[in-house]
Amino acid sequence: MHTAAVVGTGLIGTSIALALSARGVTTHLLDRDPDRVRIAAARGAGTPEPPSEPVDIAVIAVPPSRTAPVLAAQQRAGLARVYTDVASVKALPHAECLALGCDTTTLVGGHPLAGRERSGPLAARADLFQDHHWVLTPTPDTSEAALNRALELVSLCGAVPALLEPPDHDRAVALVSHLPHLMATLTAGRLREGEEYAVRLAGRGMRDATRVASGDAALWADILAANATALAPLLTELSSDLATAAEALAQLSAAAPDPAATAEALAALTALLHRGVEGRARITPPYNDPASRPHTMLSVALGDHDRPLSRLLDDVDAARLELDDVDLAGLAPHRPDRPGAGAGTAADSVGLKVAPGVARPLTEALRDRGWAVH
Amino acid sequence: MHTAAVVGTGLIGTSIALALSARGVTTHLLDRDPDRVRIAAARGAGTPEPPSEPVDIAVIAVPPSRTAPVLAAQQRAGLARVYTDVASVKALPHAECLALGCDTTTLVGGHPLAGRERSGPLAARADLFQDHHWVLTPTPDTSEAALNRALELVSLCGAVPALLEPPDHDRAVALVSHLPHLMATLTAGRLREGEEYAVRLAGRGMRDATRVASGDAALWADILAANATALAPLLTELSSDLATAAEALAQLSAAAPDPAATAEALAALTALLHRGVEGRARITPPYNDPASRPHTMLSVALGDHDRPLSRLLDDVDAARLELDDVDLAGLAPHRPDRPGAGAGTAADSVGLKVAPGVARPLTEALRDRGWAVH
Repeated sequence: MHTAAVVGTGLIGTSIALALSARGVTTHLLDRDPDRVRIAAARGAGTPEPPSEPVDIAVIAVPPSRTAPVLAAQQRAGLARVYTDVASVKALPHAECLALGCDTTTLVGGHPLAGRERSGPLAARADLFQDHHWVLTPTPDTSEAALNRALELVSLCGAVPALLEPPDHDRAVALVSHLPHLMATLTAGRLREGEEYAVRLAGRGMRDATRVASGDAALWADILAANATALAPLLTELSSDLATAAEALAQLSAAAPDPAATAEALAALTALLHRGVEGRARITPPYNDPASRPHTMLSVALGDHDRPLSRLLDDVDAARLELDDVDLAGLAPHRPDRPGAGAGTAADSVGLKVAPGVARPLTEALRDRGWAVH
Repeated sequence: MHTAAVVGTGLIGTSIALALSARGVTTHLLDRDPDRVRIAAARGAGTPEPPSEPVDIAVIAVPPSRTAPVLAAQQRAGLARVYTDVASVKALPHAECLALGCDTTTLVGGHPLAGRERSGPLAARADLFQDHHWVLTPTPDTSEAALNRALELVSLCGAVPALLEPPDHDRAVALVSHLPHLMATLTAGRLREGEEYAVRLAGRGMRDATRVASGDAALWADILAANATALAPLLTELSSDLATAAEALAQLSAAAPDPAATAEALAALTALLHRGVEGRARITPPYNDPASRPHTMLSVALGDHDRPLSRLLDDVDAARLELDDVDLAGLAPHRPDRPGAGAGTAADSVGLKVAPGVARPLTEALRDRGWAVH
């Protein structure tokens, strides 16, 4: 790939252009707002001059409802040899492209799953897509050359490609993006009439659970509407769970509770909570997240010191490293006459559970301080 | 305050003990698990020895359903002159305390609104409560001396006290903690049977929106059950909003859409999304968050340089400072012959919108590089 065009220099388009320009691809920037192009160009995302011949790939980075018409217009103008887009819904824009007579052999639908709270070309970053998934939705019409060009684009942006059928993509994002967005929105909506003293108690839990709800309402209405077919059945299922929770809570707040019904209600509520824990556990941590790697258990002999556990934890703190757990099973039983200290015999040891990135520096730091670490 | 006792050396109890010990308060640690006390003591949270006389204040830091019985037992044993607790629900435990014959003159209910994903004494931090709200729920029975002692505790932990009636507290946490927890749980629960390809697309939005759902299911069932009376009406309201959304999406996914009904459905969906944006906007950012302070607009004269906008943005990047917006209204209109550059006349200027903490270092950095900044 030597040349590219990005149509729409918002957060996503400018970030793609920054990544491509950094890899030496001559990237042309197009936008109906010339100020956005100027800012993107001034940040090094590419050139505001239109290409003199068709580029290797054009990325249509405009809102979902604008994707098909902009793509059709650029194909008619001969902007590129291959086209992709970044719309967060795939089946409906693809159908609209067909209706507008687009050439589908040179077209590969795309959806990079990355973003920021901030929008516009100033917020763009060349590494926005690094290690993020980027779905491509080729159809049987799509030529192999077009698909390979789109895969090259994803690779140059540092993202992880995932090939999906458009309807599968749409069901997936309904589950992992559109449903949480709507639920966060409805939860945040309840705050609107909340008492001032209540709203001021909102902490990190509420902020994180409702963060996505602060997104652009009109844009999100477009997205949810474009994916209504995939989203509607999920809402039906969630409504049924919500009714179960509401019934359980009504029973638990009854003025004259019946013990059997109360136990049943508590069991129903606990089952819903367990179900949430299990679903949450399926979310894989981001690449390079230490939490995704298995833990290491280090064994430290406490030796014949005074208050060895206290000294050991102080030395861990001094090394600015964090333990995930301490196993005291290898320590002599707690004796009331020496509270807080290990028994202090040479045979005593404790287990330190640490993240794998921590095991080596912690072992070195503790050995430097005279501990026997295995 | 010279002496304190913490009953329950989990995350919250040990964090309180660390904060008090750091301020010179002799803090006694009690827990039915001696290993937890040893770890908390070894981290410097206090002494595992019981006090020889009543301490100034005892903090009951056990799960909500254990709060009243533990408090009653410690009052009978004469542990302290004043008692507080940290249960996240207040009305029901208080009623249980009354039923168990607790002395309510020396009792101040409490709820520090802080936490971490990790639990236990190893995860504790002396600064866990710094700048967080800490609700106290004195009743008409509570003595002024007891309330002032509890306020001193909150102050020594660096937290911001908020006095509330127990039912008001419970309605507030239903809105800002228990409702988002339940909604995150139901959203995450839908993932349990999700296709593998769908679940792997879950990104930061889904992770943040469902983060709280990974909490202890049994503990949260207890919390939600204890606050069922305040939570139930919120669920009714949310169910009604959810039904509105489901109806709108059913209409939008209809096989043969009626234009008027479609427009109405889109309007209903947009209204719900706007409501969420408005509710979310009421959440105040944390103390010291730059986002809570007003922005500053700097004006930079571009002078008679080549590609001045590009040079200016490069210099901002070089200073490792971030702009929130760039206003190009003061720049000569875009000229196709010099695309991407400012017009380059001495009168040209651009506005840089920055967070207040950024204005001064950015002004200095840009002046050092020869820019005229106002």
